[in-house]
Amino acid sequence: MIFNPSIILVRPQMGENIGAAARAMLNFGLDDLRIVAPRDGWPSQQAIDMSAGALDSMPPARIFATLAEAVADLHYVMATTARPRDMVKAVYTPAAAAAELKTRAEQKTGIVFGPERSGLENDDVALCHAVITVPVNPDFSSINIASTVLLMAYECFAGRNATAPLQKNFEPAPQETLEEMLVRLEGELQKAGFFRSPDQKPTMLRNIRAMFTRADLTEQEVRTFQGMLTALAGKK
Amino acid sequence: MIFNPSIILVRPQMGENIGAAARAMLNFGLDDLRIVAPRDGWPSQQAIDMSAGALDSMPPARIFATLAEAVADLHYVMATTARPRDMVKAVYTPAAAAAELKTRAEQKTGIVFGPERSGLENDDVALCHAVITVPVNPDFSSINIASTVLLMAYECFAGRNATAPLQKNFEPAPQETLEEMLVRLEGELQKAGFFRSPDQKPTMLRNIRAMFTRADLTEQEVRTFQGMLTALAGKK
Repeated sequence: MIFNPSIILVRPQMGENIGAAARAMLNFGLDDLRIVAPRDGWPSQQAIDMSAGALDSMPPARIFATLAEAVADLHYVMATTARPRDMVKAVYTPAAAAAELKTRAEQKTGIVFGPERSGLENDDVALCHAVITVPVNPDFSSINIASTVLLMAYECFAGRNATAPLQKNFEPAPQETLEEMLVRLEGELQKAGFFRSPDQKPTMLRNIRAMFTRADLTEQEVRTFQGMLTALAGKK
Repeated sequence: MIFNPSIILVRPQMGENIGAAARAMLNFGLDDLRIVAPRDGWPSQQAIDMSAGALDSMPPARIFATLAEAVADLHYVMATTARPRDMVKAVYTPAAAAAELKTRAEQKTGIVFGPERSGLENDDVALCHAVITVPVNPDFSSINIASTVLLMAYECFAGRNATAPLQKNFEPAPQETLEEMLVRLEGELQKAGFFRSPDQKPTMLRNIRAMFTRADLTEQEVRTFQGMLTALAGKK
């Protein structure tokens, strides 16, 4: 079973936000969109336009009259909310929520998002097993609904390849190749009178070496640098 | 110094996206917005409307004619790009990029975002020290520009409260210092007949730039390199 928690938008107001949410979902491989009582009806041309093709590429969004009906077939549901609620429920960060959902990959799960202005009502939150709160700047906490969907979809997707390593798309040259270049550079600099004082030469060479090793030069780049040296210093 | 990497939007097309990017920034406490050559001019009513108050709550966005000017005072700059480039640069995930920027919290850093349709040009990427690619669904990879800003701002915010930063014991030179050096190097190489074919010159320059930006040269090192150039090329 593919990890694909349902995204449930409760009483969304703007079609644009539904479309942006759909695009964000599909960017991160989620494609089960459920909408509870959209204010402006469904389908919505604004939603289609803002989805940049996502609504046409995913299974049709399903429309429900109530949140209870929208989550009826799900086993575990989390509510996104900005405010603390007077309810005894665990509060997760987006990353922790994605990890929790991931442990339930064999179950049908969902994430619930409230209307733009007001957020979820207490009765909506009560239907959910736990709460997700995005940590935001307390001085400017009004986050767009599609942005919250994006963060959750992103965390769910990242959670799939959790330890994906940082990639380097290049391989540094072997040390001996760099060494040859540095020896030649030293020779050319010596001929050109760069090392004014013999005392300082070892330190200067060490500093030059530091620059070049830090750059992780590839073999091609070492050849380029050799070419630059040949051009600049000539074949004296 | 507060960790506040600059957000640099290059040739953005839609004011709405600039506004959404500003809102996303401020949601996660970033407030240094720089815009390079916005297609529809500045200020933009669409941007103000979409920012939900963010543009009025942060210092005024600064407008630049070129990316080079926009990043002139920064020490370390990362480019967001969806496509792999033929350039030798490390590629980071958003989380790894935020961690890298966090290690440089004492430096002025920035994250660069390209135009909606086309993304950054190779010459833009060449100005940056490293690349960030958001891992997305390969079957639906078209991610909104403001969404990418949101993810980076979110990761930077989360990153602030992460574990103690790695230490780096050096500070890269400001971009303008490196730029001067590269312009001079280009001139010397031109005089020395290094660029055999005019067709290949732009690619060669980009490759040379990639080597030097990746090395994170300090101001002292740039001076050393200028000294080497003077010695090698002479005062012809």
